[in-house]
Amino acid sequence: MAGRREQADGDSGTTSRLSRRGFFTGAAGGLAAGGLAGVGGTLAAGAVEGPGSSGQQSNSDLTYSFYGSGPQAGVRTPPQQYCVFMTFDLQIETARELQVLLATWSGAIDRLMSGKAIGSVEPSRSSAVPTDTGEAQELGPNGLTVTLGLGPGVFDKRFDLAAMKPALLADLPSLPSDQLRAELTGGDISLQACADHPQVAYHAIRDLARMARESVHTRWTVMGFGKASAGAGQKTPRNLLGFKDGTRNITEKSDYDDFVWLGKDAGWMAGGTYQIARKIQMNIEIWDADHIGDQQDVFGRTKHVGAPLTGKHEFDTPDFAKKKADGDPVIPATSHIALAAHENNDGIKILRRPYNYTDGISRFGQLDAGLLFMVYTNDPDNFSRLQRKLGASDRLNEYIGHIGSAVFAVPPAVKSGHYLAEELFG
Amino acid sequence: MAGRREQADGDSGTTSRLSRRGFFTGAAGGLAAGGLAGVGGTLAAGAVEGPGSSGQQSNSDLTYSFYGSGPQAGVRTPPQQYCVFMTFDLQIETARELQVLLATWSGAIDRLMSGKAIGSVEPSRSSAVPTDTGEAQELGPNGLTVTLGLGPGVFDKRFDLAAMKPALLADLPSLPSDQLRAELTGGDISLQACADHPQVAYHAIRDLARMARESVHTRWTVMGFGKASAGAGQKTPRNLLGFKDGTRNITEKSDYDDFVWLGKDAGWMAGGTYQIARKIQMNIEIWDADHIGDQQDVFGRTKHVGAPLTGKHEFDTPDFAKKKADGDPVIPATSHIALAAHENNDGIKILRRPYNYTDGISRFGQLDAGLLFMVYTNDPDNFSRLQRKLGASDRLNEYIGHIGSAVFAVPPAVKSGHYLAEELFG
Repeated sequence: MAGRREQADGDSGTTSRLSRRGFFTGAAGGLAAGGLAGVGGTLAAGAVEGPGSSGQQSNSDLTYSFYGSGPQAGVRTPPQQYCVFMTFDLQIETARELQVLLATWSGAIDRLMSGKAIGSVEPSRSSAVPTDTGEAQELGPNGLTVTLGLGPGVFDKRFDLAAMKPALLADLPSLPSDQLRAELTGGDISLQACADHPQVAYHAIRDLARMARESVHTRWTVMGFGKASAGAGQKTPRNLLGFKDGTRNITEKSDYDDFVWLGKDAGWMAGGTYQIARKIQMNIEIWDADHIGDQQDVFGRTKHVGAPLTGKHEFDTPDFAKKKADGDPVIPATSHIALAAHENNDGIKILRRPYNYTDGISRFGQLDAGLLFMVYTNDPDNFSRLQRKLGASDRLNEYIGHIGSAVFAVPPAVKSGHYLAEELFG
Repeated sequence: MAGRREQADGDSGTTSRLSRRGFFTGAAGGLAAGGLAGVGGTLAAGAVEGPGSSGQQSNSDLTYSFYGSGPQAGVRTPPQQYCVFMTFDLQIETARELQVLLATWSGAIDRLMSGKAIGSVEPSRSSAVPTDTGEAQELGPNGLTVTLGLGPGVFDKRFDLAAMKPALLADLPSLPSDQLRAELTGGDISLQACADHPQVAYHAIRDLARMARESVHTRWTVMGFGKASAGAGQKTPRNLLGFKDGTRNITEKSDYDDFVWLGKDAGWMAGGTYQIARKIQMNIEIWDADHIGDQQDVFGRTKHVGAPLTGKHEFDTPDFAKKKADGDPVIPATSHIALAAHENNDGIKILRRPYNYTDGISRFGQLDAGLLFMVYTNDPDNFSRLQRKLGASDRLNEYIGHIGSAVFAVPPAVKSGHYLAEELFG
């Protein structure tokens, strides 16, 4: 099994915080009053400690810290309701320009995550151009996290950084079920902004892109309008196929250490991880015409409760060996959960952080929608192995297509006074 | 002045309810615990009465009634955070089929607004196709309203309903600043679903479209990801140009009576209104490069506070006569608020219910975003008059283009046991 890594510095203490917050499960809809601050960062001033203390408190006050000694926020952070993901091509030519970009963005991300504008919304001199576009004023931080990733292109010849390339960072191999569109692939840098208000997430990406417009060109973007997987203490949400998604997602600290965080052997990337972004289009109108028995066989779970077909409750452990009278397994071997289960994949797990998206109506007049499938793993090959298997025989393939794809290295967080990936320029 | 109409039946009592709820202004972000139920409908069982009563309550419980004797919900209803708007072309040939469609949709909208699935998510017979697609399970009603409109096409020759055509229902005239795209215009029927959770709004539209797939084809849709105008008791939100929007919107009952609701002379449409939907694309990256003095002159307001340039506070009344030392008005005559103000338009007001939208990145690599501008008026010509004036000289035109447009008649609500526009088939 690939992936047993040591715990990154500063990663202690947050898991117990998570388990204390099991009471938070009523928060479906992102509307609970209270906070989950401190997970994936330091508890910041202004964050509220829990629900129920005041009916006036709300998630709009929730703040995560950008600076810290563990991983970047936005990976282990319990999924916020909304997400805007964007990748960029670098338009610069020197390592120094890249250095300035990362330093400038780091400072701006810290301000945004604190609920501050990145600069003046209304400068006093009338001939000055505002540095912040203003549409997030008064909305509060809303648990905003911005997570930065470095694509393989950062380590090509342009910047003389090939020696610093994270060991496992490479474009994904061609995978079955790929229906990739060139305009939805790749990127030298990624920004993932998640928040409990979509305009806060959108503002963050917009203003980060804008302040760097001399250095980067936007490449592709997906706006997620509802989280499709839960974190610890959250109720499992549903994807647009109507099924609960992420029931068996990673929640335990030991699994994060084994499958998500990079260990000390990763050098400057220790405490970081890899990010895989896939835009998965769903043919939901075809899915909607399928009968319930087939839908449940495709997933291997019941639709309403989300129980494995061998169980009664959502979190019952699937029994892949259990047979029907005719000798076939109760959970079909080609069902999604059978193919993806760690029991059937040498123990491999990946952290999924997906969001539902919609692009309106297709040129065929059908709903154009799907899943922004964000994956975090300390070994991208774990994803490729799973996807190769799923792509080959997953019954879900009839209803989905992977149209976008990119992979990035996510450097660890930095302490105040430093900037992301500073070690690259050491 | 066009538009003084009598109050529709059953419209009494809700305005005072609104003013009682001024304490709700901390709800930016849609995250307040509490309810605004009863506005634009009847207080439904399960709705909470106000914030502060329990830290566990949230907007996810908020319910509006579909049935009632006033206007449909979703017009005067304080804007929810999210909106999905879709128009449809009728594929049917007889009035009876239209009757069945409206009756079926009415029953389904009632269920959806009550937080119920429209049918079985997981039918017990495995060969049955689910009637509800399931992705809104567990999310709660989230203040969902679904508002149905009838386009001019309903009253063409197909259904022999020309005699019942609402007096002022007609396609809008060609207007300056129109950059309409054929695929974003028109429709025989519109559905506007607004809720405090986007997946609830999306689910409503998806399942209504799906259940009627033999009768209608989708035409165009916009998904609004953040309200851009306030209702009574709400803080004024911002559009994607970073300015507060809707400060001078209609809030008073007398203005609703004068400018929104149709009176008894409107026959079967009494208590109804007209809906105008415009998709307005914003060139936000060009806007973002403009200096603050010009941005404020374009709107006639300050950016941070949103005060008129002649005032200090957001709700100060603009003084359009006030002059600078050089004799020019302090609020430029070509500013948006000067051109749109009722003081400068024979007293005309329109109810605006806009939402910000984004379509990702344009083919030029720029942010593709703007405003879903929903207007309600008892005389569509009031909108055309204002837009003709704005389109001719509004300084905002440099930054926006109207790319989508449609107009609909919004019949009044019906009592339980009846369906929308039932009078058409009397």
